[in-house]
Amino acid sequence: MITSKQALDIILDNTENFGTEEIPFLESLGRILKEDIFADRDFPPFNRVSMDGIAVSYDTFTKGIRVFGIENIQAAGSTQLTLKDTEHCIEVMTGAVLPKNVDAVIPYELISIKNGKATVELDEIKRLQNVHLQGADRTNNERLLKKNTIISPAEIGVFATIGKSLVKVAKQPKVMIISTGDELVEVSEIPLTHQIRRSNSYNLVSLLQDLKINADTAHITDDKPLLKQRIEQFLTIYDVLLFSGAVSKGKYDYLPEVLDELGVKKLFHKVKQRPGKPFWFGYAVPFGMSEQDGDECHSERVERSEESHTVVFAFPGNPVSTFVGCVKYFYPWFKKSQEIEYENRQKAILSEDYFFKPELTYFLQVKLENNNGMLYATPVTGNGSGDLANLALADGFLEFPDDRNEFKKGEVFPLIMYR
Amino acid sequence: MITSKQALDIILDNTENFGTEEIPFLESLGRILKEDIFADRDFPPFNRVSMDGIAVSYDTFTKGIRVFGIENIQAAGSTQLTLKDTEHCIEVMTGAVLPKNVDAVIPYELISIKNGKATVELDEIKRLQNVHLQGADRTNNERLLKKNTIISPAEIGVFATIGKSLVKVAKQPKVMIISTGDELVEVSEIPLTHQIRRSNSYNLVSLLQDLKINADTAHITDDKPLLKQRIEQFLTIYDVLLFSGAVSKGKYDYLPEVLDELGVKKLFHKVKQRPGKPFWFGYAVPFGMSEQDGDECHSERVERSEESHTVVFAFPGNPVSTFVGCVKYFYPWFKKSQEIEYENRQKAILSEDYFFKPELTYFLQVKLENNNGMLYATPVTGNGSGDLANLALADGFLEFPDDRNEFKKGEVFPLIMYR
Repeated sequence: MITSKQALDIILDNTENFGTEEIPFLESLGRILKEDIFADRDFPPFNRVSMDGIAVSYDTFTKGIRVFGIENIQAAGSTQLTLKDTEHCIEVMTGAVLPKNVDAVIPYELISIKNGKATVELDEIKRLQNVHLQGADRTNNERLLKKNTIISPAEIGVFATIGKSLVKVAKQPKVMIISTGDELVEVSEIPLTHQIRRSNSYNLVSLLQDLKINADTAHITDDKPLLKQRIEQFLTIYDVLLFSGAVSKGKYDYLPEVLDELGVKKLFHKVKQRPGKPFWFGYAVPFGMSEQDGDECHSERVERSEESHTVVFAFPGNPVSTFVGCVKYFYPWFKKSQEIEYENRQKAILSEDYFFKPELTYFLQVKLENNNGMLYATPVTGNGSGDLANLALADGFLEFPDDRNEFKKGEVFPLIMYR
Repeated sequence: MITSKQALDIILDNTENFGTEEIPFLESLGRILKEDIFADRDFPPFNRVSMDGIAVSYDTFTKGIRVFGIENIQAAGSTQLTLKDTEHCIEVMTGAVLPKNVDAVIPYELISIKNGKATVELDEIKRLQNVHLQGADRTNNERLLKKNTIISPAEIGVFATIGKSLVKVAKQPKVMIISTGDELVEVSEIPLTHQIRRSNSYNLVSLLQDLKINADTAHITDDKPLLKQRIEQFLTIYDVLLFSGAVSKGKYDYLPEVLDELGVKKLFHKVKQRPGKPFWFGYAVPFGMSEQDGDECHSERVERSEESHTVVFAFPGNPVSTFVGCVKYFYPWFKKSQEIEYENRQKAILSEDYFFKPELTYFLQVKLENNNGMLYATPVTGNGSGDLANLALADGFLEFPDDRNEFKKGEVFPLIMYR
């Protein structure tokens, strides 16, 4: 059995590139930018008035003149005016172009205006005061945003200001989420005594929504020929299959053998971790084109390039196992595939001693608290991997290493947050 | 001029209730739950097998019997079987109901099966081992989720498992985002030298998308009658108006007087802060029903109750001022309105000394790093409130108090994150 670290390394060695697409900038929040973004002009594009008031000539002011006849008004959005008489001033508005022949702005708060004249009660002013100089923030063609940035509201504003109506982002993988298990009925159904409703699929759907992936879902009963037929079809359509269930030692856990029969290459099955030990991972080479038979005739893949693999994450069917599997393994796989930071740098401080006996990596459910800039994690121990409701009491998982049993208050461990 | 704390207190004294609505559970991610959620049955609903293997009678095992004839198979999703001969066993699958007359599950890993007989090589077992007892996690009618929870993927799974197809969530306010300023042109246009493109509106749109609010947008030129006419109309339709611009001292900053003429009650104008000093906040009583004239005839409000106010946040037009205004004031107003935790408990540790002279609350742009569970904030100083591109280099704002100028490395300050 491999360790959790080995499992993650194998998964990260099998990332995929899904290409790029152009989408309207206002729909790009949370997506991954796939082009560098450059300034289309200087920022600001002109010497910009940054206070409402009057604009004067600094030299005139230093000559001792304190009363200025108002020659004109420079509004924001108007073409640049010129001060004709340098002993005059022009009223200027925030956001306006600084007029010609002036080089200092004195705000209304520091002047009085009467009979078309502005009187300034100041001993000194600075040249270019309250002027936001052309190119002071960024210059034309300067890079504003780097490729492979996750788009936040800050980036949306930058797209708008440079007129980037369409932005190039990473295409999302086509993902199918498949639950198995004859005990499962639909959310809208009333389960019999020995049945329960499907819930893992919907945990996965919403965990993927957080990544802006709209996944499809399917349920397959524990019927081997049917399972095989449906998966064969999904392999031709999807980039990723996420399974929940049917990977353990049960008589009807057909998934590993069905995947094998379909030529899906197993990279590992079972990881030294709790929850989620019987996790299976592998990939399918393009349909009709096994790795040995490179020149065999190809059958069609719907909407997919023939070079791309279908990656298969098959998580154990317990709710917490499936949930951890997604955030611990699928999330970094997705992020590395999209070429963004995928290493988990989040850590938290354990707030009380904890003991865990088995020599497995343990994902402990924790509640988080930011206490004066320090992130504390308090265990929210449930009844194990079947305890779905406990997930709603926690904020994330603390990851305990597999080489010891005692974890002390104040120690720091990697953290995976899900809210 | 009031302080930032006073401003926030006034804003939080003027929250609104937008009611509730029922939506499909899979569309509820990020929304606010408005009902307690109870278990519809025990969790698990039956004594559930939690390992694949054989189920035996504990008493039979303690009598020394180690070879058990396999009587039947209990699959997940099948009705409960009964062990007929207590010296036999039943093969059982994870997720299945524990059969009658057995009370311990021995996993396949610890047995060998030959000729229809299972041989156990163990000295002892425990009664009820590998059985997840009915009601062990939660009991029927126990509360699983509290009203006023922000819905995460964990809650989605709980909705699914109890068959909650429709969930009651807080209705979102109807929000209109209005930019002003004759210098602004559309994103798709090529600005003339003295023009720039609208960007603040889109920052706001995406900041609201993060709260799952789909806001409308409008642009109004610096034309007083037009401004008045459009705002009058918006007041009849929207719960919230978010303005960017036209609140300072400029000749065309008509907004405060227009709002006054329309009977919108000013609660404050100008806050001791940077950026964003000329921030204006107030509310409109229902149209045709001023606070003095309670019994005047009412005109219609489209899709709104006549009791609800329209709340008006008018932020200064500099990009960083608008951005800070939204996350510092609108966000907590929205959260308190929806009855969720609105106090900002996030804090970060300043990673280097910083000096800021004016006696104003200062919102410093910072880059964040989680270093061993401690959250460090490093200044990303731009060129002031007009420097839109700088927002994309930072992750949030550190809030410095207005009563001093020096801020030391290692000190802890409130943090507002926007990514």
